[in-house]
Amino acid sequence: MTELLANQVCGRWQTGSGPGTALTDPVLGSELVRVDATGLDLAAAFAYARDTGGAALRALSYAQRASMLEAALKVMQGQRDAYYAIATANSGTVKNDSAVDIDGGLFTLGHYAKIGLGLGDRHHLLDGEAVRLGKDPLFQSRHVLRPSRGVALFINAFNFPAWGLWEKAAPALLSGVPVIIKPATATAWLTQRMVKDVIDAGVLPAGSLSVICGSSAGLLDQLQPFDLLSFTGSAETAELIRSHPAVTRHSVRVNIEADSLNSAWLLPGASAEAMDLLVKEVAREMTVKSGQKCTAIRRVLVPQSQADAVAQAISARLAKTTVGNPRNESVRMGALVSRAQLNAVREGLDLLKQQAQVLHDGSSHPLIDADASTSCCIGPTLLGLKDASASDAAHLVHGHEVFGPVATLLPYRDEAQALDLIRRGQGSLVASLYSDDGATMARAALELADSHGRVHVVSPDVAASQTGHGNVMPQSLHGGPGRAGGGEELGGLRALNFYHRRAAIQASTVVLEHLAPATSA
Amino acid sequence: MTELLANQVCGRWQTGSGPGTALTDPVLGSELVRVDATGLDLAAAFAYARDTGGAALRALSYAQRASMLEAALKVMQGQRDAYYAIATANSGTVKNDSAVDIDGGLFTLGHYAKIGLGLGDRHHLLDGEAVRLGKDPLFQSRHVLRPSRGVALFINAFNFPAWGLWEKAAPALLSGVPVIIKPATATAWLTQRMVKDVIDAGVLPAGSLSVICGSSAGLLDQLQPFDLLSFTGSAETAELIRSHPAVTRHSVRVNIEADSLNSAWLLPGASAEAMDLLVKEVAREMTVKSGQKCTAIRRVLVPQSQADAVAQAISARLAKTTVGNPRNESVRMGALVSRAQLNAVREGLDLLKQQAQVLHDGSSHPLIDADASTSCCIGPTLLGLKDASASDAAHLVHGHEVFGPVATLLPYRDEAQALDLIRRGQGSLVASLYSDDGATMARAALELADSHGRVHVVSPDVAASQTGHGNVMPQSLHGGPGRAGGGEELGGLRALNFYHRRAAIQASTVVLEHLAPATSA
Repeated sequence: MTELLANQVCGRWQTGSGPGTALTDPVLGSELVRVDATGLDLAAAFAYARDTGGAALRALSYAQRASMLEAALKVMQGQRDAYYAIATANSGTVKNDSAVDIDGGLFTLGHYAKIGLGLGDRHHLLDGEAVRLGKDPLFQSRHVLRPSRGVALFINAFNFPAWGLWEKAAPALLSGVPVIIKPATATAWLTQRMVKDVIDAGVLPAGSLSVICGSSAGLLDQLQPFDLLSFTGSAETAELIRSHPAVTRHSVRVNIEADSLNSAWLLPGASAEAMDLLVKEVAREMTVKSGQKCTAIRRVLVPQSQADAVAQAISARLAKTTVGNPRNESVRMGALVSRAQLNAVREGLDLLKQQAQVLHDGSSHPLIDADASTSCCIGPTLLGLKDASASDAAHLVHGHEVFGPVATLLPYRDEAQALDLIRRGQGSLVASLYSDDGATMARAALELADSHGRVHVVSPDVAASQTGHGNVMPQSLHGGPGRAGGGEELGGLRALNFYHRRAAIQASTVVLEHLAPATSA
Repeated sequence: MTELLANQVCGRWQTGSGPGTALTDPVLGSELVRVDATGLDLAAAFAYARDTGGAALRALSYAQRASMLEAALKVMQGQRDAYYAIATANSGTVKNDSAVDIDGGLFTLGHYAKIGLGLGDRHHLLDGEAVRLGKDPLFQSRHVLRPSRGVALFINAFNFPAWGLWEKAAPALLSGVPVIIKPATATAWLTQRMVKDVIDAGVLPAGSLSVICGSSAGLLDQLQPFDLLSFTGSAETAELIRSHPAVTRHSVRVNIEADSLNSAWLLPGASAEAMDLLVKEVAREMTVKSGQKCTAIRRVLVPQSQADAVAQAISARLAKTTVGNPRNESVRMGALVSRAQLNAVREGLDLLKQQAQVLHDGSSHPLIDADASTSCCIGPTLLGLKDASASDAAHLVHGHEVFGPVATLLPYRDEAQALDLIRRGQGSLVASLYSDDGATMARAALELADSHGRVHVVSPDVAASQTGHGNVMPQSLHGGPGRAGGGEELGGLRALNFYHRRAAIQASTVVLEHLAPATSA
């Protein structure tokens, strides 16, 4: 029997009482470890986090909590090799792809430690200036932010066990809100290991960070009015979460990141150089983490006249992508996370092929050091519509996300059609634009700003410095409206808003003066 | 048959095809007008608002939309007498109470017209400064706000047919988002009349403001991903709204304001002057609009040693409150809005009396020019707990809101108990504090800031200038966590956030430069 990973609840490590669910290697098919949450006292776990963890965190200032994040970062920096080994085994990712998750997570944690230090030795944040409420300047209103007096429950996705933990936990802990994380079972190991390293190092107050691995049954039932819930995953699960009584009755604040059919758009009149930047970015986004990124490019919009050239250029790049066992150094793209995901990608491809043609066939890629019958490896596939009219008609392409190394090329006739096609995604995380003219790109970015959480603009002058369509930078908002779930994460200090309650304090300026300096709460 | 009020949808006035629901005079019991939405083409109504109204509003700049609000204000200022007459007849309110709704609504509209002019001739708002994304300063991220490309549906409460319309519609229209308002049936007349005056004056673009009176059946089914939904009313209806597929599947952004057990807190060691300020405020809040304000004081926390003195002083003020027909000039407090509300108040009083004693009995008030068997008039009732231990035990007082002229006095033993009792409201719209010491009040206000949307601090120096516990000022946030619904309204320009989508634009500074001036979208 493999190791049964322990859960951290009530300030101690506790294993579940059931047989556990096995986590497997998606390349070799072997069992790695098991997780189980059977028999945990969830009511006690939530109460301990909320009361003991919450009180301890709120007693610290923002700067003190930032130092605490710095200490956690230092602990994990010493364990990077172990994390990479877990990622290779459990996620089947090549080193560069593991880095997106692991180093991306540590970078995000470090970013919040750094900006948190700038918040200083205080226990509340000010929101705007004081404003007069009448003719007499003595009575004014000032808005403040105070940490929510509850626990933050994170129900996370399988594709980012490291980054998904820290991009949420860093702003929560910095805000003074304790965290309970429930990682996706398939890749829970890395999340559990990072939490274990940080907890065992004693750098966080007791109760401030808990991890529960295995079934999520009963977790939502524990939520109370001041708690917070953040979910990343499928639209179906998001719907169940939003319908749960904790949300509908107790006004538990919810942040959701669900499906997204992100676009890359080559603007009309773009130069050959801009076109080449789009080609590189699409090929990269399709293959990084085998396309298992919520921000990956799914739809590629190209002027009708340039569609063939773009199709050939992307296909040529994809053809060079070696696929298979990440332990083989010649391999550039590893596995999907599980057989279930592999089947979902195959089914999704069959669906889209009803309306789109295959421009580059992923099944033509030989697998290196991997057995097609047991591994979860699959080559990248580029689909395409034959012309602008077909792009309008292809409703499946605008409505079904294939969560793997798959994208579809959509020829368009003019800017109005391109905007319409992009908006048919019903709200996405990110769109990227490729062109050469600043004013045109600014105007196009604003046109897409209301249906996207992020618009990434690539022009030849930033070819070397642009941070990538799919890379989520902590400085920028991550999230999107509609189909993308309606959530907002990151965006620097904006991330702290979710974990704070805003209140207007209406009072004599004599009272308000006491809010402006670092007030001890 | 009384007049059947028309609905404004698809840019024209349309009456429902059914017999309609009668609106009645809560003092005289007579029928006033009827409302009906039977047979309206709701899909066409929403599409017209979203497409025609939305496009027209987005084509205007913030300053142009602010001028449009100014024009609407001017139209309504010429009709104030008609609005007061409708309020007297349909809400049964005395002139001062009608003013809270009517003049409060116009004041709020004027506030948004004024601050909107300051946003200038632009089509997007900037959110924060541009930040560097790497070592090269050429590639940066800048956040912008753009109006949501949908329609805002308001399902409103009966107690503020005028203010409830404009405190929501002013920020929505200023943001560039078209509005469909569904007023509460009992008092829909005033809302419909104000919309009619503004529409008929032609000061708004076609489709930007619609009103549907009568049943709300089918309205939520029309909502799509970029639409917005704002609800003010009961926690039960809020639960149904949050469970609706528009919300759970389409990520429709929802703002809810539900129940709230607001507190007034006489801090330990407060002077006799501060105590007197609390007494006046409680008596006023209990009787303004017959206590039918979501912000009214329901729980009064007083040091045990001062409880008797406070009870006597409040009771003495209540005893002087004349109750009855608002057309009689000697009357200070009019009717509740309906027999259903009167019955709910009586039942609520019976419930609270299981745990609290009657300190001043509202049924002792004679009704002036009103028939107890047909009118909806009732005198103010002060309940009280006998000591601090009883305050702890009285769970009904912390959990059941009686929406009428009713409050309960809760003696407490120390600050910790007072905070605990206030927090047992599980999130409220507002708490008010009464004391003399600035530092103490600031500390107490911060302690309550995470469970309240607003903390109102009353000290003797602001006795004349303080704006009142229950008055919602447009400069300050209105809303509260948990039981209060979790929503946020008003707060000056903060109100615009709900109607905008935030996006990070990552680009060359050459592109970002085009965002900073007034960019034409």
